[in-house]
Amino acid sequence: MRVGDQHFRTVWMEGRVVRLIDQPRLPHTFGIVDMPDHHATAQAISTMIVRGAGAIGATGAFGMAQAALEAPDDMAGFDAYMAAAAHTLAHTRPTAQNLFYGIQAVQRGIASASTVASRRAAAVQAAQAVADDDAACCEALGRHGAALIADGARISTHCNAGWLAFVDWGSALSPIYMAQRQGKKVFVFVDETRPRSQGARLTAWELGQEGVEHAVIADNATGHYLYRGEIDMVIVGSDRIAANGDVANKIGTYTSALAAKAAGVPFYVAAPTTTIDPNCPTGADIPIEERSPDEVRWTWGWSEAGEFTKVRTVPESSPARNPAFDVTPAALVAGIITEKGVVPATVEGIASVARL
Amino acid sequence: MRVGDQHFRTVWMEGRVVRLIDQPRLPHTFGIVDMPDHHATAQAISTMIVRGAGAIGATGAFGMAQAALEAPDDMAGFDAYMAAAAHTLAHTRPTAQNLFYGIQAVQRGIASASTVASRRAAAVQAAQAVADDDAACCEALGRHGAALIADGARISTHCNAGWLAFVDWGSALSPIYMAQRQGKKVFVFVDETRPRSQGARLTAWELGQEGVEHAVIADNATGHYLYRGEIDMVIVGSDRIAANGDVANKIGTYTSALAAKAAGVPFYVAAPTTTIDPNCPTGADIPIEERSPDEVRWTWGWSEAGEFTKVRTVPESSPARNPAFDVTPAALVAGIITEKGVVPATVEGIASVARL
Repeated sequence: MRVGDQHFRTVWMEGRVVRLIDQPRLPHTFGIVDMPDHHATAQAISTMIVRGAGAIGATGAFGMAQAALEAPDDMAGFDAYMAAAAHTLAHTRPTAQNLFYGIQAVQRGIASASTVASRRAAAVQAAQAVADDDAACCEALGRHGAALIADGARISTHCNAGWLAFVDWGSALSPIYMAQRQGKKVFVFVDETRPRSQGARLTAWELGQEGVEHAVIADNATGHYLYRGEIDMVIVGSDRIAANGDVANKIGTYTSALAAKAAGVPFYVAAPTTTIDPNCPTGADIPIEERSPDEVRWTWGWSEAGEFTKVRTVPESSPARNPAFDVTPAALVAGIITEKGVVPATVEGIASVARL
Repeated sequence: MRVGDQHFRTVWMEGRVVRLIDQPRLPHTFGIVDMPDHHATAQAISTMIVRGAGAIGATGAFGMAQAALEAPDDMAGFDAYMAAAAHTLAHTRPTAQNLFYGIQAVQRGIASASTVASRRAAAVQAAQAVADDDAACCEALGRHGAALIADGARISTHCNAGWLAFVDWGSALSPIYMAQRQGKKVFVFVDETRPRSQGARLTAWELGQEGVEHAVIADNATGHYLYRGEIDMVIVGSDRIAANGDVANKIGTYTSALAAKAAGVPFYVAAPTTTIDPNCPTGADIPIEERSPDEVRWTWGWSEAGEFTKVRTVPESSPARNPAFDVTPAALVAGIITEKGVVPATVEGIASVARL
């Protein structure tokens, strides 16, 4: 999407180099970091220079493509090198489903090629396809979602389910970008999304670059604006969708859904169908990650001098708790916006689009 | 209440000096600041060294007592000095109802005394009575509220409605302190309360000093814990209660009430009856203050070096909005805990305890 006057993806490959938007430095500084080999790319994933399911998947695939270009010329050496690279890349973020998908897509791509040279070419092609598919999927999702957005709509979103979390377009923000390009006027209430401030840092930055009117609000204020009829719809992303339509997403999503329901405002979840976990019957089966209490006790940001630093708000002796996700029951979800269309958050709706 | 091994009030008078807990430096540093005359006391109110309805009321009254000790010996000069002092003190925080109440209580106290010497004594006595009444009121409220708290209760609270906002005991936290002193085991989930972090900074500190088990959580996590049955009751304070039982309180209170209702968990509002505004028919009649967007864009806290400073999380070009309060409809409120007892959040319930 747009950064200044240019179009960027979160990750792409030029020759042997994987180039990434340096996300931890956003919104203060926009920069590109170059990963010269697959080891560097692996490190970029583990240190969270890149984040978000789709973006991680494509980065993993590009790392495999780099490995294919680096590998020895003999077939046995090539295969051993690729196996080691797959291991290295897969262990950067062991729970990222899309990472394995990206790595495996390249492995499948090279399996049918019979020479090292053709395997190198196939690896690059397969990795590029992973990135292109992710972008196309999010764009299709955006088109379906945009049909739900009225001209003049005031939309609430939580966390960052924008293009920075994918290769391009994003999930929750894709319908908003698409609606704006269709000439509709939209306004976005951006939840800051404590404790990690992804809304304040990333979503606000994305919207600003795309010229979408918005305001950042404390997560506490979403219910207030819904109650007063100042929000027309809510669109959020998802980390995992259960077979019954229950949705796991960033902590705070559930309360936003409750407040939308109370206000009679539709609450949509936008996610590629890869987010659906058909092996997970209900939201109760989704484990909730508990992250470091220091994320609550300290807030990261930029000092007036422009230094990235943190401040502590909580007394030194006070404990904190930090669940990273919550589950929104399907009954609160007006619909799931996918690349295949908008479906109800029901067993039947989910089954009609799930990749089995 | 307890700070270390000692008992403190938020504000008290020693001779001509008004002494205050230095609240902006909490929880990093506990300190007492001395106001040598009523001008300094007025400045302490306007710069928010002291905050919270009850604490401001008592501080205003003590400022008037200081003025009475400073005033000239002749009756005309004394009265002129007192009128000027009342003006100075009343203009420190022009919307603080309790401030006017504290000032007027001293004015009434001196009106019946016929000599300057007796007026000085009456002023000090009246100011002390304002502070003592506030503490006694909160203690009575705590006793009524504690009866609602079961042994082992896990309680959620929002913002700071503790003793730091009053002279002693507090409103929402008073029942918790009382229950703990009665030997009940309690655990408190403390909402950090963005954007100003009063929960993280003040409530967590108060609870720590009183030895109440607690954890600070992002405001986003309250709904999650309620949904999972890990919270047994919610108690919050209030800035204003309408005649029909609608409650204005710190932004985020409404969503907490919604999540409590959805979980079948009782949501209580604890407030002295001075908080009830009989002239305000419903919550829709309560104006919502919109504060500086910079409170959302920047977070204040302590750096690792121990310096009180701020960090920016929002892009420089992104606007923010910052409603300070929200309204929780009476239907979500299980009861109002007052110094006169616990009453339903209904027109009849409110009328039965309102000071008309």
